[in-house]
Amino acid sequence: MNSYGTLFRISTFGESHGPAIGVIIDGCPAGLSIDESFIQSELNRRKPGQSKITTQRKEDDTFKILSGVFEGQSTGTPIALVIENQDQRSKDYSHIQNTFRPSHADFTYESKYGVRDYRGGGRSSARETAARVAAGAIAKLILKKSGIEINAFVSQVGALKAPPYTQLDLSKTEDNIVRCPDSATAIKMIALIDEVRLARDTIGGIVTGVIKNSPVGLGEPVFDKLHAELGKAMLSINAVKGFEYGSGFEGVHLARLATQR
Amino acid sequence: MNSYGTLFRISTFGESHGPAIGVIIDGCPAGLSIDESFIQSELNRRKPGQSKITTQRKEDDTFKILSGVFEGQSTGTPIALVIENQDQRSKDYSHIQNTFRPSHADFTYESKYGVRDYRGGGRSSARETAARVAAGAIAKLILKKSGIEINAFVSQVGALKAPPYTQLDLSKTEDNIVRCPDSATAIKMIALIDEVRLARDTIGGIVTGVIKNSPVGLGEPVFDKLHAELGKAMLSINAVKGFEYGSGFEGVHLARLATQR
Amino acid sequence: MNSYGTLFRISTFGESHGPAIGVIIDGCPAGLSIDESFIQSELNRRKPGQSKITTQRKEDDTFKILSGVFEGQSTGTPIALVIENQDQRSKDYSHIQNTFRPSHADFTYESKYGVRDYRGGGRSSARETAARVAAGAIAKLILKKSGIEINAFVSQVGALKAPPYTQLDLSKTEDNIVRCPDSATAIKMIALIDEVRLARDTIGGIVTGVIKNSPVGLGEPVFDKLHAELGKAMLSINAVKGFEYGSGFEGVHLARLATQR
Amino acid sequence: MNSYGTLFRISTFGESHGPAIGVIIDGCPAGLSIDESFIQSELNRRKPGQSKITTQRKEDDTFKILSGVFEGQSTGTPIALVIENQDQRSKDYSHIQNTFRPSHADFTYESKYGVRDYRGGGRSSARETAARVAAGAIAKLILKKSGIEINAFVSQVGALKAPPYTQLDLSKTEDNIVRCPDSATAIKMIALIDEVRLARDTIGGIVTGVIKNSPVGLGEPVFDKLHAELGKAMLSINAVKGFEYGSGFEGVHLARLATQR
Repeated sequence: MNSYGTLFRISTFGESHGPAIGVIIDGCPAGLSIDESFIQSELNRRKPGQSKITTQRKEDDTFKILSGVFEGQSTGTPIALVIENQDQRSKDYSHIQNTFRPSHADFTYESKYGVRDYRGGGRSSARETAARVAAGAIAKLILKKSGIEINAFVSQVGALKAPPYTQLDLSKTEDNIVRCPDSATAIKMIALIDEVRLARDTIGGIVTGVIKNSPVGLGEPVFDKLHAELGKAMLSINAVKGFEYGSGFEGVHLARLATQR
Repeated sequence: MNSYGTLFRISTFGESHGPAIGVIIDGCPAGLSIDESFIQSELNRRKPGQSKITTQRKEDDTFKILSGVFEGQSTGTPIALVIENQDQRSKDYSHIQNTFRPSHADFTYESKYGVRDYRGGGRSSARETAARVAAGAIAKLILKKSGIEINAFVSQVGALKAPPYTQLDLSKTEDNIVRCPDSATAIKMIALIDEVRLARDTIGGIVTGVIKNSPVGLGEPVFDKLHAELGKAMLSINAVKGFEYGSGFEGVHLARLATQR
Repeated sequence: MNSYGTLFRISTFGESHGPAIGVIIDGCPAGLSIDESFIQSELNRRKPGQSKITTQRKEDDTFKILSGVFEGQSTGTPIALVIENQDQRSKDYSHIQNTFRPSHADFTYESKYGVRDYRGGGRSSARETAARVAAGAIAKLILKKSGIEINAFVSQVGALKAPPYTQLDLSKTEDNIVRCPDSATAIKMIALIDEVRLARDTIGGIVTGVIKNSPVGLGEPVFDKLHAELGKAMLSINAVKGFEYGSGFEGVHLARLATQR
Repeated sequence: MNSYGTLFRISTFGESHGPAIGVIIDGCPAGLSIDESFIQSELNRRKPGQSKITTQRKEDDTFKILSGVFEGQSTGTPIALVIENQDQRSKDYSHIQNTFRPSHADFTYESKYGVRDYRGGGRSSARETAARVAAGAIAKLILKKSGIEINAFVSQVGALKAPPYTQLDLSKTEDNIVRCPDSATAIKMIALIDEVRLARDTIGGIVTGVIKNSPVGLGEPVFDKLHAELGKAMLSINAVKGFEYGSGFEGVHLARLATQR
């Protein structure tokens, strides 16, 4: 379904070429100052067309809060947040109406539902993540009150790896367009993406997330362990194919014996 | 929380004096013709100010579908439906800002959340039911395909009772402003409500719902029995204080022995 | 499904003539003293065969805790509680194998599942409520720590009504076999049930529940209002056909005008 | 919480040194032949102490079905399945009562709940997976009817990798104690594990799962994508630190450009 979470639950809606996308946030504590400029700045970080190395589509993700906020504060009732789609012009999509684009969800949606909004990705468009970003911004405002910090940055593009996060200054993440806090690696990454782009191709990468000041005992045994929930959330993002936690796949080499050799 | 249902799940949002109210419907089957004029007619039936015997507030409940419908058909993705609040003028509410109106949720919300949208009922306003009616209209469209009919009518006001539903022509429900299909009883009900209204009072009543062609085995044992779910849904509507199913409270008298006397 | 609740969730299982019935309680806070003799006393109150006016079936509901309790205290992990069915003898049920008993769930289960445990009521047997009683006993232990008291008693049998609960001493509920705290009414109720029983019939009644010291703001808007949840829980008990809260159906007469006449 | 799934939902309970562990399976379709010998064979595959390269603990995982099965068939009601803990002897655990074992959940449980079943891992013991295996065996019986096959095997231990699964005969998985269908790699893996074991150490590995004949369109957009759910389920197993789907982390190298070089 289109909801995630138990106590703080988000329900998203919207297609890439419908009137709007949005999210209902249920369970936001009352009395939280809803900093709209922060939400906008998070949406601005996500939006495509910001640089030569990203999707060139233009989206101006201006949001509107329809409920749950009164005099700048959350009231404990559901916060509905809507982002209108501006690029809804009646473009001719007939060339993809009967074509399934490779590596897209076109075929799957058509098979599952028998009907498909063929104007772009529809519901399966990465545009859906804008609703997550808006909800995530509000989640960050809540977590900030408990001193919890969440940072994410690009740690790998193709074979180019940044140093381990413990050696990085994460406050520098926004200093370049690829959002790698290590400027030397960032320069190489940008060059590589640009080269791949000119060859009309794309290239994958890895995003590393660092959560600081997380309280002990977060998450629930047995099925809802913190890293199991994080894994599900990350794997539900379009095009994500893997998730590691802590030592991750490197853990296969961790025997002291193996290390000593 | 603000969601109801498992496979067909609705999540509502909105306060009486915020920008809008609305609903996300998740789980609507794909390929359903979304008859917008039917949804509007259901919303029109709900809206206040239709006659001398109801709330005089004016609301023009025009809705807009933001997602989940493409070329008149549901696509299987969440249907977001929004109704803007037109009566958002900056009226002076200072007289109720620090007053808790009796028999309203003002005190409860303030106690629970520490903050309250004091412009009218906020989230606890009966206006929230407009979102349910819109979702219910879509549910009716789905059920109609299986031949299931749902009718509801006013069967009692004060001590005035309509005959049992089996003796009524339910198609006459909309023939009068109190929506009792028995015209003789309806005339008395309207007169009583009018009398009570002139005395600046209100009076209660009973709504009877009749579901026809329901398949055998609907509902789930043990906790989610059909009548348990119906009971919860009805009891969650503002001001509803009781629910009966089948023989209901009359069942206490059903022993043959008692009947024979 | 067979689960109820969100933070304190119970999942029940078991048929009347299978090896055992039971419940998993998930969400019980850690550090609660699990008073097993209290759980047993609650189960004893429920068990049939206690007097001439109830079902004569013999059940000795001895329970066993399989998990979640260590050294007499809850640990925060799920509490599994099992009650073995002692009356599992290979009685001959062939006379009801192909017969649907009226007012039972036999036909519904057969229609829904295509297969049915025809030895008695199976899953639809009122025996399932033993699992609820055990879980309810633990819930009462939790609520007691917050000073919340829950009492229930028989307030009506057929047309015989006890006085309003505010005029009763609820501590006298267990003083008679019909569990009506008003002894004068109780005597009449017992006589009536006995008379009906001798005529090989049954008769209905009403149970009134009184919750004291409930905190303000319990329950969740909009769908999970406290009385909506209570209504669902009560209506999910076998043979319950109605639920009232507060003034209940009497509310239809509450206009001052109506009262003054 | 201790439940997983929506339509087919499992709820597990039990600690390593309590009376029993078990699972309630809710949503198993009626009319399924419950092959108890298959369930037992799956439990036998899981149990420790089978060879020199696994945990030496002895557990004889004999299960008992308490409900939901009648005359060898599922009835549609919850299937409760219990495995008694045989090794409950009153061993002296005082040496770990006040000690938190590294890389175990001891500290986390104590911090979260304030109380802990210190006899072994308690709820966090890998013994909990026996309940998953039993439920998984029933899930496999359901999936088999639709022709869906699920296979899993050890594809890597330390740096030792089996060839890609498309080059393997998965029916050979059980032919050796490390459960790698490539016998040449299996021999090396067993030698490595044995070497590590003699050095009183452990070593990690990778399990590859292959699902055949999965229907198109399984899983739900947006949050409950099939691979997101699989990821959560796998990451909730003790000691799992990563999950890949399809091309997985190798995807970062997939640009044609990168490949051509």
